[in-house]
Amino acid sequence: MDFEAFFKSELDGLHGEGRYRVFADLERHRGNFPRATRHTPDGPKEVTVWCSNDYLGMGQHPAVIEAMKEAIDHCGAGAGGTRNISGTTHYHVVLEQELADLHGKEAALIFNSGYMSNWATLGTLGQKIPSLIIFSDALNHASMIEGIRYAKCERVIWKHNDLNDLEAKLAAADPNAPKLIAFESIYSMDGDISPIKEICDLADKYGAMTYLDEVHAVGMYGPRGGGIAEREGLMDRLTIIEGTLGKSFGVMGGYIAASTALCDFIRSFASGFIFTTALPPTLAAGAIASIRHLKASPFERARHQDRVRKLRTMLDQKGIPHMHNPSHIVPVMVGDAAKCKWISDILLDTCGVYVQPINYPTVPRKTERLRITPTPLHSDADIEHLVSSLHQLWSRCALARHVA
Amino acid sequence: MDFEAFFKSELDGLHGEGRYRVFADLERHRGNFPRATRHTPDGPKEVTVWCSNDYLGMGQHPAVIEAMKEAIDHCGAGAGGTRNISGTTHYHVVLEQELADLHGKEAALIFNSGYMSNWATLGTLGQKIPSLIIFSDALNHASMIEGIRYAKCERVIWKHNDLNDLEAKLAAADPNAPKLIAFESIYSMDGDISPIKEICDLADKYGAMTYLDEVHAVGMYGPRGGGIAEREGLMDRLTIIEGTLGKSFGVMGGYIAASTALCDFIRSFASGFIFTTALPPTLAAGAIASIRHLKASPFERARHQDRVRKLRTMLDQKGIPHMHNPSHIVPVMVGDAAKCKWISDILLDTCGVYVQPINYPTVPRKTERLRITPTPLHSDADIEHLVSSLHQLWSRCALARHVA
Ligand SMILES: Cc1ncc(COP(=O)(O)O)c(C=O)c1O
Ligand SMILES: Cc1ncc(COP(=O)(O)O)c(C=O)c1O
Repeated sequence: MDFEAFFKSELDGLHGEGRYRVFADLERHRGNFPRATRHTPDGPKEVTVWCSNDYLGMGQHPAVIEAMKEAIDHCGAGAGGTRNISGTTHYHVVLEQELADLHGKEAALIFNSGYMSNWATLGTLGQKIPSLIIFSDALNHASMIEGIRYAKCERVIWKHNDLNDLEAKLAAADPNAPKLIAFESIYSMDGDISPIKEICDLADKYGAMTYLDEVHAVGMYGPRGGGIAEREGLMDRLTIIEGTLGKSFGVMGGYIAASTALCDFIRSFASGFIFTTALPPTLAAGAIASIRHLKASPFERARHQDRVRKLRTMLDQKGIPHMHNPSHIVPVMVGDAAKCKWISDILLDTCGVYVQPINYPTVPRKTERLRITPTPLHSDADIEHLVSSLHQLWSRCALARHVA
Repeated sequence: MDFEAFFKSELDGLHGEGRYRVFADLERHRGNFPRATRHTPDGPKEVTVWCSNDYLGMGQHPAVIEAMKEAIDHCGAGAGGTRNISGTTHYHVVLEQELADLHGKEAALIFNSGYMSNWATLGTLGQKIPSLIIFSDALNHASMIEGIRYAKCERVIWKHNDLNDLEAKLAAADPNAPKLIAFESIYSMDGDISPIKEICDLADKYGAMTYLDEVHAVGMYGPRGGGIAEREGLMDRLTIIEGTLGKSFGVMGGYIAASTALCDFIRSFASGFIFTTALPPTLAAGAIASIRHLKASPFERARHQDRVRKLRTMLDQKGIPHMHNPSHIVPVMVGDAAKCKWISDILLDTCGVYVQPINYPTVPRKTERLRITPTPLHSDADIEHLVSSLHQLWSRCALARHVA
């Protein structure tokens, strides 16, 4: 087989469909986020980033920066080993305590990414608990889907956020089989929020564990940034809360928070936790600083929501169609892969606005969109410039408007 | 089902077998590695780390430290997004060029860990290339095994480093099926080295791609630290070279180096690459500094090998049994899980020597060992103290000696 020719023809397929991905080569500037320099063949250009998942700008917060540099000065670059073989530092221990406290759980366990925490935890539970059935929301993130596949246990997909469908499927399953319901609080592409309380009620009724991915909510919701479950007073009803250190906390890494026995079980049996180098102490230190800051400070959250409201209001005034949802994610709908890419290119090249087009397989075909994420650091002028740029493009491309 | 009781009884099983893992809570000290402070319930204690995979001590190299702090000052903590959605910075682009150059390949692709690079690359190749057969060495690392399982393609396990067995299995397979041979250069627990050239010869004969994990060799072997394949002048014969940034480079992250088309293919289709937050710029910056330093400087490599020789010679003088292998990994064999843990506890508590016991499932039962990794920073006095501590313990426990 000619392997090179095979790879090239698969890539040609992506080009043909207009969904070949070109990564923007950015240079963020600490103290100046959401501004960044984009490296192009024609030289550097200044852009405003409108699609970052550093939702609160904590990636440049002085407390985070200082903690990271201090940790590097204190103990160097990497952890130097797996968690078991010389890679556990005091920063890891403290970070796990901080996360357990954030979610009101006995314990927490950190991974190198949210992807890994979902994959390793769901995979290990499904492999080790005899005849476990995992009930998975149809729109769960790729990392949860891969984890559930990896588990090789029985899995039942229920319609997205549909309680009737979930209950019907729970009721139809073997009453004696152990069960786990896996879902997210905020779904990242549509920004909708799941009925956590009602799902927990069903879990109680059918004796299921609950696994909640709060990746797009931690730091941003709840009085201490514990996520949607904290805001709704539901944290104690979830068996496992999973989150990331790489989005609103501004660093990188993932985690679960749960009972001591459950965390110890995953720690002891999950391949993806055991056989990999631990997170560098500096990332743990930055995450600790970020979590502590957001536990105590409501200001970033308030300003964040204010910016989201302002952007939505202005989009509505111009009739730019966006999904109405109860979160901070503002999906501006285009519905065509090539057009979506084209708009995003013009925004980038002529307006200094960087919003990556989102296309299949991240979202279904025909729902291609610009996924806009305002941060507390976007000014009124930034929002006005974004909306007027979109307004002009909408006219130029004769795109449908939403009638307010 | 009582889930908590289930988790606890599984953990009890580990305790009963003497292989429940207790992580040492360490504080490394930059400038003072391999010394570290161990946090214990009785207060902090000074220890010498003898089991770190920061093989060359690059985790505290001034060039790495400076590059990391500079990147944090320059652009903040995290990448703020996936590689596609605002998470690619100039540091990522430069790091990939640096890695491609290190291995003499057209391109490279970075992941958040070596684990992820193995899992995502092997999994994606096996899923996407129709009827691919993966020929996997029996002792391949957990991350490769999981990647090959994930691939769900046909897999053939060949006897560890056994060319006859590999050839017999290649010859027995459908001659028209596309094939890939997956193996490591240095196997991390025994420290033995694979016959790379002969495996490549077989790959050529049977039209197979080659996938080489150089995780325990990059930085440490070859004139520029390109690994065993560089040392033997074989880099161009490998389709894919995989490595980590978390061991001898002292930071964290993983990568593959290969043709442009292959890297672009994995970049475009691998779930574990696409759907996760990118490596923080500071880690990329640290890795660039580390790789550049080790490309130019042979001193760490020379001193490393010198320390390994010195340790082996002294162990031989005392008849302490260790596996003779051609690498830098010095496995001191104990052959019993409880004894191995006990020795390691005494070394830690009374001799200030930290070597984590290695037991099942990381190594087969009855081959439990202390896996000792000398670094260029271990002094003669450190080595003498380690060997005399082992010597005393060997007498105390009446452990078998090796007759020189
Ligand atoms: C819902 C969800 N879960 C998990 C992840 C993975 O988290 P991380 O980026 O930390 O790997 C993401 C996005 O990246 C996500 O959107
Ligand atoms: C052979 C081998 N490959 C891959 C890995 C994973 O690399 P990383 O620690 O960067 O995840 C390891 C060890 O951790 C390993 O020993």
